[in-house]
Order: sequence, then structure tokens, then C-alpha cells
Amino acid sequence: MDEKARKYVELFRTVKIASAATVDGAGRPRSRIINVMLAGGDGMVIVTSRGKPFWKQLTDTGEVALSAMCPDCQSLKFLGKVEVLDRTWVDRVFEANPGMNEVYPGESRYALDAFRIYAGHGEWFDLLHYPIRRESFAYGGCAEERCGFAITAACTGCGACAEACPQKCIVPGAPYAVERSHCLQCGLCAEQCPAGAVERLHP
Amino acid sequence: MDEKARKYVELFRTVKIASAATVDGAGRPRSRIINVMLAGGDGMVIVTSRGKPFWKQLTDTGEVALSAMCPDCQSLKFLGKVEVLDRTWVDRVFEANPGMNEVYPGESRYALDAFRIYAGHGEWFDLLHYPIRRESFAYGGCAEERCGFAITAACTGCGACAEACPQKCIVPGAPYAVERSHCLQCGLCAEQCPAGAVERLHP
Repeated sequence: MDEKARKYVELFRTVKIASAATVDGAGRPRSRIINVMLAGGDGMVIVTSRGKPFWKQLTDTGEVALSAMCPDCQSLKFLGKVEVLDRTWVDRVFEANPGMNEVYPGESRYALDAFRIYAGHGEWFDLLHYPIRRESFAYGGCAEERCGFAITAACTGCGACAEACPQKCIVPGAPYAVERSHCLQCGLCAEQCPAGAVERLHP
Repeated sequence: MDEKARKYVELFRTVKIASAATVDGAGRPRSRIINVMLAGGDGMVIVTSRGKPFWKQLTDTGEVALSAMCPDCQSLKFLGKVEVLDRTWVDRVFEANPGMNEVYPGESRYALDAFRIYAGHGEWFDLLHYPIRRESFAYGGCAEERCGFAITAACTGCGACAEACPQKCIVPGAPYAVERSHCLQCGLCAEQCPAGAVERLHP
């Protein structure tokens, strides 16, 4: 894991409270609040008990999406792959999160399985300060996700995109260019371009 | 909408910061932090811009899952159906959330579409206080979701379930009974029952 990814993985653990989203057997989104129990160079660890729909969705799909609000109003989002760990990891989680003993006293902790989020990609986003800023990260062999908009050689230099941009993150040139780390991804540039020169990078 | 659902819909608005999960075109879970912009007897209103993957996932699937952490450590989760609203709703959202003008000044607000979550079901969950407590709610013609465990007539009264329960929410009787509003849904009762009398209610 590179330093950038490690910083954000540790930020998830600092925040601790995150939402975890999965897809259920009917293809619907499901979400609940969880704690990020451990985080480090190997990824993040979460737990859930075998009785819960969350456990079934994790084991059926092998995927989880996290999002969290950081104390100073920046947000994190993440899509990752999970693997189940052996029960020594439940003990490690309880050691690092002793409050868990109040919910699962004694041996009942082994109703839980620990899951490592061993790979994935995510984004940190600061919408509070101008210029707004986003930064992507990835680990475990996943690539950073390419999102937002790019201006192609079809640009005629009319400036309609820069005029429309609510965050003024488009710089003149031939072609004009979107500063993607400061982009809202609102899509107004693409909607306003008379030459059809603005390409959407994400599906 | 009944009073119970209204209470929780308004709690989502009070918290304001929630995660919104959707399913993308590849069937993967996606999640990000959003604001619940309006809430009342007609449901909740959120906004997103047409340029974002979130917009596409909302319009493609018509579904969103929300979760939120309440200030006193109770959590909310929800699965609902969305419909797009006309642009007068963007204006109503900006009136109720004037900070939005800093992100989307002037006419750029119309890069956003407002979506009403017009139906759905959810649960409030207090894991902090003993006994833990959960309450279901639903509105817009959706039924409350039936989750957790129930003990059938196959119960022999051995008490293994009550012994195993980390939250002591199983009461003796013929058959024994799970107090579902105080249940962790960990599944230990079902795992420990020698008679196979504990039925899982959720898929």
C-alpha cells in the first residue's frame, strides 16, 4: 500500500464510524452504520455476525462500499473487496475495541466473523473549502478510479464550459482543460459545450 | 405516513449527514456522503447533479439505501424508492439549505436534480444502551421489514438459546421467544439450538 492510500485507510479508522453498503440477493442496495475496527498496511478490518443479512451479503458478493464523514467535514468513499479472516482476528478486534465486550460478552464474540477489506479504491472529497478538492487512492492491486470530465481536441476555445463551471475549475487553452482535482463533476461543462468536446470519463 | 415513520424521516433531516448507497451498472455497491435536504410527510428529498455517477445510478435503479449516525450514537438505516422532481424543488432545497449557493452559485443550481424518496422501509437501532433496541418503520405503501429470529413449536425448552444469547433477549416459555426489538440478530440462538427450532426471518 502506498503512503497516500495508507493515509486514507488510517483516516477511516480515525473516524471509525462509517456506513457499509452491500448488494442483497435481489440486487438492491443495503446500508448500515459500522465501525472500522482495525486499519493498516494490509487494509481495513470490519466484523459482523453470521446471523445478519450484512454477513450474507458480504460473503455472497465479496464486496463492500464504505463512506464516512470526517470531523472537519471532508468525506471519504470507498469500494473494496473482502475476505473472511480466522477467529484470532476477532480477538485482535476486541483487544483494539474493548467496548465490543459489552455487546458480545465472553465467548459470544465468536458469533462474529472478521473481514479484511484487502483491496479497493476510494476518494477523499473536501466540499467545504474553496477550491473544493478531491483525491483518489487505491490499494491491493486496484487502480484509482478515473472519474469526472475531460475536454478533447474538438474544443473550439469558445469558453462556454469555463463560463458554466460553478467551481471555476476549467482553464483556458487549446483545448481548455478541467482541473479534475477541483471538479464537482456536475456535468454543466458537457451540457453547455456547443462542440460536444467534453467527454465523460466515468460510466 | 404514520407518526412513527415521520419521526424517523425527520430524524434523518435533523442528522442531515447520511450515506447514500446505490447499485452501479456492474451490480456493485456504491456509497457516498450526502445531505438529506428536506423531510416531511411526503418523504425525504436529496439532490445530485446530472454529471455524477450517483445521478445515473439513482435514475437507472430507482433505489437508494441511506444510513446515518445520530448524535447520541443511535443509527438509522433505510431502503427506499426515488422519483425525480421538477426544478422548483431545487429552489426549495436551496431555500432550506442556503449553504448550497456557495457550491452551486446562481443558475448553476440547475445542474442538480432533486429526488424524492417517496417510499421505503428502515430501522432505528440503539446499540449503546442496555437493553439494545431496534424499531422498524415504513411509509409510502412499503411494509416494515421482518428481520431477526423466531422460535418455532419445535422448541424443547432446553434453554440453550437463552444461554447463548449475548443480549439476554430470549424469554423462557413453550416455545421460548425472542424479543426481537432487543435482538442483535447475531444468530447464536439458531447455531446453538439442538432441535433446529430457531427460524431465521430474513433471507
